[in-house]
Amino acid sequence: MTELLVIKIGGNIIDDETKLSSFLKSFAEIDGKKILVHGGGKLATKLAEKMGVEQKMVDGRRITDAETLKIVTMVYAGYVNKNVVAQLQRYNCNALGLSGVDGDIILAHKRNHPVIDYGYVGDVDSINIPLLKNLLELNMALVFAPITHDQKGQLLNTNADTIAQEIAKAMSAEYDVKLIYSFEKSGVLLNAEDDSTVIPGITPSSYQKLRASEKIFAGMIPKLDNAFAALNSGVRKVVIGNAEKLNELIAGRSGTTISNE
Amino acid sequence: MTELLVIKIGGNIIDDETKLSSFLKSFAEIDGKKILVHGGGKLATKLAEKMGVEQKMVDGRRITDAETLKIVTMVYAGYVNKNVVAQLQRYNCNALGLSGVDGDIILAHKRNHPVIDYGYVGDVDSINIPLLKNLLELNMALVFAPITHDQKGQLLNTNADTIAQEIAKAMSAEYDVKLIYSFEKSGVLLNAEDDSTVIPGITPSSYQKLRASEKIFAGMIPKLDNAFAALNSGVRKVVIGNAEKLNELIAGRSGTTISNE
Repeated sequence: MTELLVIKIGGNIIDDETKLSSFLKSFAEIDGKKILVHGGGKLATKLAEKMGVEQKMVDGRRITDAETLKIVTMVYAGYVNKNVVAQLQRYNCNALGLSGVDGDIILAHKRNHPVIDYGYVGDVDSINIPLLKNLLELNMALVFAPITHDQKGQLLNTNADTIAQEIAKAMSAEYDVKLIYSFEKSGVLLNAEDDSTVIPGITPSSYQKLRASEKIFAGMIPKLDNAFAALNSGVRKVVIGNAEKLNELIAGRSGTTISNE
Repeated sequence: MTELLVIKIGGNIIDDETKLSSFLKSFAEIDGKKILVHGGGKLATKLAEKMGVEQKMVDGRRITDAETLKIVTMVYAGYVNKNVVAQLQRYNCNALGLSGVDGDIILAHKRNHPVIDYGYVGDVDSINIPLLKNLLELNMALVFAPITHDQKGQLLNTNADTIAQEIAKAMSAEYDVKLIYSFEKSGVLLNAEDDSTVIPGITPSSYQKLRASEKIFAGMIPKLDNAFAALNSGVRKVVIGNAEKLNELIAGRSGTTISNE
């Protein structure tokens, strides 16, 4: 099967013009099929402040009221997505900016949580595999903003890590998929304050031990849960590491590699 | 040759939720290949006000400084584009939202005007015909926000009428193209205040007479100049008329039809 890279770029990189530009240059130089998923970093929060729209966060997730949905749609699918694509074009990488609503690529439903009303937050139902394949065959990098829809006209704010995971899982039916979560840290750390304590490899059994010993930084747990879910759905390898070392992450020479064995 | 409709939807319709929804329902029901080009109506101006970014207009064109470029990218390519696509999905019309930067579809350069500094405004250089054709062959409506780029990483704000015209002209090489400018008026009017004075047909010679007699509403002149330029580049027909009568416009039973004979 043809190889496909699905790469999530973290918010702190999006916020840093120099780091983002350097990341996009590396991304542009990668040969082969590739999908980039981004969020919006602090830009949405900053715009909300300017517009006087109060932001509420619960467990690191933004509560998305109607005004906030408007803001994240503008920032993620408009400003960030089009600037990322323009920079990739500049680096001679043809790219197509997308959200989940385009081509009906990511169908979701409004989260129905027993306790917390997350507002217009979407949980993914399905990925349009044939269309994604058709678009990849046109030899463009695909760049996703984390906005989905419910097919009834409602846009939904959706976690970018989850979107990367769902795309990677779905596309495993057609491609040999490597999923990379790239961000400002060097990988999964034993000590969140010390970037030299990267765990090079995690398997299901070592993960259980790490969780039991509470040695893993809480913010990493959803990423690792997503990683194992992806492996169990056919993704070949998940790598978590520093966005500034993209080539090393792809080659498995940096970051934390999560695998089933 | 296969027929292709290129439809521009005017700002006043974008601003009116009910009219926009009704227009999109009609658009969704059209059979065959279709491209929709939209602007952002007054939404960009409203957001600029909220953010305290002063807007300058010269001859109906927005002067696009760096902050304004950010705003129009967010509003046009983010908010409006994704909401239009979500509504089309709701009406069972698969659609793909695009800007000129995506897939390198519309290459432009920053306007170099001898007197007025328009800021980050783009004049179109070329259209990526093979990619547009590939995307149309995937049987999705294509929905364009009027943002282009210079292939050096710079986004550019570009007039939506011009984009519709340039796409229509370029695609005439591959399709039998009808270009429709739909807005809040019933067509080209003899009396701008009286919607019953629609001129049903305009040819190059009647246009010269109308201009000489100063009978045409000034705001229509750029639209008509664009229309004749389009006809001279292979577009079969240009129709200008009321967005609420989309089917009649397509059938030539409403609005003003501009043709070479």
